[in-house]
Amino acid sequence: MKALVYHGPGKKAWEEKPKPIIINPTDAIVKILKTTICGTDLHIMKGDVPTVTDGRIIGHEGVGIIEEAGSAVSAFKKGDHVIISCITSCGKCDYCKKAMYSHCENGGWILGNLIDGTQAEYVRIPYADTSLYPIPEGADEEALVMLSDILPTGFECGVLNGQVKPGDTVAIVGAGPIGMATLLTAQFYTPSEIIVIDVDENRLNVAKTFGATHTINSLTENAAEMVMTLTKGKGVDVAIEAVGIPATFEMCQSIVTAGGHIANIGVHGKSVTLHLETLWSKNITITTRLVDTSTTPMLFKTVQAGKLDPKQLITHHFKLDEIIDAYEAFGNAAKEKALKVILTS
Amino acid sequence: MKALVYHGPGKKAWEEKPKPIIINPTDAIVKILKTTICGTDLHIMKGDVPTVTDGRIIGHEGVGIIEEAGSAVSAFKKGDHVIISCITSCGKCDYCKKAMYSHCENGGWILGNLIDGTQAEYVRIPYADTSLYPIPEGADEEALVMLSDILPTGFECGVLNGQVKPGDTVAIVGAGPIGMATLLTAQFYTPSEIIVIDVDENRLNVAKTFGATHTINSLTENAAEMVMTLTKGKGVDVAIEAVGIPATFEMCQSIVTAGGHIANIGVHGKSVTLHLETLWSKNITITTRLVDTSTTPMLFKTVQAGKLDPKQLITHHFKLDEIIDAYEAFGNAAKEKALKVILTS
Repeated sequence: MKALVYHGPGKKAWEEKPKPIIINPTDAIVKILKTTICGTDLHIMKGDVPTVTDGRIIGHEGVGIIEEAGSAVSAFKKGDHVIISCITSCGKCDYCKKAMYSHCENGGWILGNLIDGTQAEYVRIPYADTSLYPIPEGADEEALVMLSDILPTGFECGVLNGQVKPGDTVAIVGAGPIGMATLLTAQFYTPSEIIVIDVDENRLNVAKTFGATHTINSLTENAAEMVMTLTKGKGVDVAIEAVGIPATFEMCQSIVTAGGHIANIGVHGKSVTLHLETLWSKNITITTRLVDTSTTPMLFKTVQAGKLDPKQLITHHFKLDEIIDAYEAFGNAAKEKALKVILTS
Repeated sequence: MKALVYHGPGKKAWEEKPKPIIINPTDAIVKILKTTICGTDLHIMKGDVPTVTDGRIIGHEGVGIIEEAGSAVSAFKKGDHVIISCITSCGKCDYCKKAMYSHCENGGWILGNLIDGTQAEYVRIPYADTSLYPIPEGADEEALVMLSDILPTGFECGVLNGQVKPGDTVAIVGAGPIGMATLLTAQFYTPSEIIVIDVDENRLNVAKTFGATHTINSLTENAAEMVMTLTKGKGVDVAIEAVGIPATFEMCQSIVTAGGHIANIGVHGKSVTLHLETLWSKNITITTRLVDTSTTPMLFKTVQAGKLDPKQLITHHFKLDEIIDAYEAFGNAAKEKALKVILTS
C-alpha cells in the first residue's frame, strides 16, 4: 500500500509500505476513506515530537471501512464504516475507567506517533471496539473526519474544561482550526459574548461567520486592554488558550475575571510564568488536557441533529495521493486561507 | 475601649481607641468574647499588606455578643452570641449571589484591613445579617473561633477546590495552621492516604495525631521523590499548597498525577513557574481562592455533630490584654510549638 512516511525533520515521502496485518485479536484493519492533517503533524515534520521516529506512517484522524476485524472484536465487522479516534483506548485500565482515555495505559495518543497512523491506504487500529465509532448509512463522512480529533479537542479541552455557561463572556485566544472548533462548540452553552483573538485578519473574519461576537487582531491592537473595555473592566468568565506559547497564556491570565476559568488547549514547549501574586486570591481555575475523545458520541449526535456543522472547518480538498501538496497548503495556512484539508482515497 | 493598633511595619500597641458606633443601619456592634491571631496578621505587622494603614485595629476572627444592632439588622439582636466571619458579605451583589463572598463588591476581606478589626474589645460588623453566624446556647465558643477563617480556608481553598474524593491520595505541602485545617477537613471525604510535608518536625508529629498517614520532612528528605515512591510512581490525586512560596508550588506540580488537582491556598508574593511543557497534556486542574466562608454553616454542623474538633488546633491561651505576648508566641511558632492562640476578653 501507499503511505505518508516520516524520515526525520523536514523529510517525508508518499511511498510503498507493507499493508498492516492483525497483530492482536482486539485489532482491526481499516481501509482509509478520508483523512486529514493536524497541526501536530506539522510539529512532527519539524522534528518537535521525539517519540516519532524515522519510518513512521503519521496521521491520527480519519474515517474508513473495516477491512478485517480481529477475533476478539465484537462491535465491528468487515464492511462497517467507522470514525477513527485519535486516541486509542483499551477500555480496561484505571484511566479508561475514568473516561481519561488520553492516558490509557495501553493506548492514548499512539496513532501516527508510537505506531503507524492514518495517512495511508490502510491502518491497524488496536482495541478497535473502544477506539472506533460506527458511522450509520447515509451520514456525511467528510464531516465526521472532524470528530477524530479537532472537535472533541476544542470541546473537551476548551469548552468543557472552561465550564462555559449560559450568559458567560468567553475569549478564545487563537483562531486556528482548534480555536474555531472551540468557537463552534462553545455555542452549545449559549454564552453571551465570544471574543476571538488572533493575528490573522482572514481567520478573524471567518470567526465572525462562525459566531464570534467580537474579534481582535492582537498584531494591531492591545488585545488585553480591548477585552477589559469590552467586559467593562471585569474580564472574561472563560479564557481559552488555543495557541501554545507563553504570550497567549499570559494574555489569558490578564483577561480572566475573579471566579473565572483559564482552559489551556495549546501544546506548550516551554514553561510559562503564572502570576500567583495576583491570581492567588482571584478564585481562578486553570485546566490542561489532552483530548480524551470521550465526547465523540455526543458530538456525533449534535452533527446528526444539525446543531453542529463540522464541514465549516474544511477549506481544502485533495486526493490521498496528493498528500504532499496538501501538506504544502496546510503548512502555509495563512497564505492559503486553510483551516482543515480533506484527503480522499 | 482597648484595641491592638498597627502603627506601620514592626510597630503595634494595645491602646485606647473610641468604641465603634453604628454607621449604617445594616451594621452591628459586637463585644468580643474570644479572638485569635492569623498568619496574615503577622504579614500585616511586617508591612506586607499595604492596604493596612497606620492606626488600623487589626484582626478578622472571633466570637462575641451583639452589643447593638442597626435598624436594618433582622437576624440578630442585642445579647445574641455570634461567630464573626473574616469575610464581610453584602449578600446582594453579583459575587454574593454566586456565593463568592470573598469578592463581595461592598465587603470581602475588609475587617482588620480596610476597616477596624476584631483584636479589640468591640468591633463594628457591616452587613451583620450576612456576615455573622448565630451561636446556639451551650456551644463551645472557643472552638467556634476556628470557623471565622482557618477552617473554611483549609476546607474551601484546599479540600473543596482540590475535589478530594474517597480513595484519593492527597499531599498537603505545609503543616501550619492552614495546612492542619486542611488535614482535618480532608478526612470528611475519606481519602486513602494523606501525606503531609513540612520542615518542622514537631508539626509533622502533630499532623500524624491529626490523621496524616505519612509525613515527610522536606528539610532532610527529597520530598517529591518520596511522594512518588509512596504513590508507586504515579503521584497524588490532590496536591494542596499551604505555604505560599514558589518552591512549594513547584513541588505540587512535580507530585500531581495525570488527572489530578493542585489547590493553592498560600498567599503568594511572587510569580511562579508553571511547567506547561509537561502539564499541558496531563489533564490537571489548578485552583486559587480567597476563602468565601460559604461553608461556615456546614462546618458548624460538623463541629456540633462531633465530626470535627477545632480545639485540636488551639495550643495557647491568653487574656485579650496580653495580646502583645500572644503575638510574641505566635510569631515564634516553631520554638513555641504554636498553632492557634485564643485570646479571651
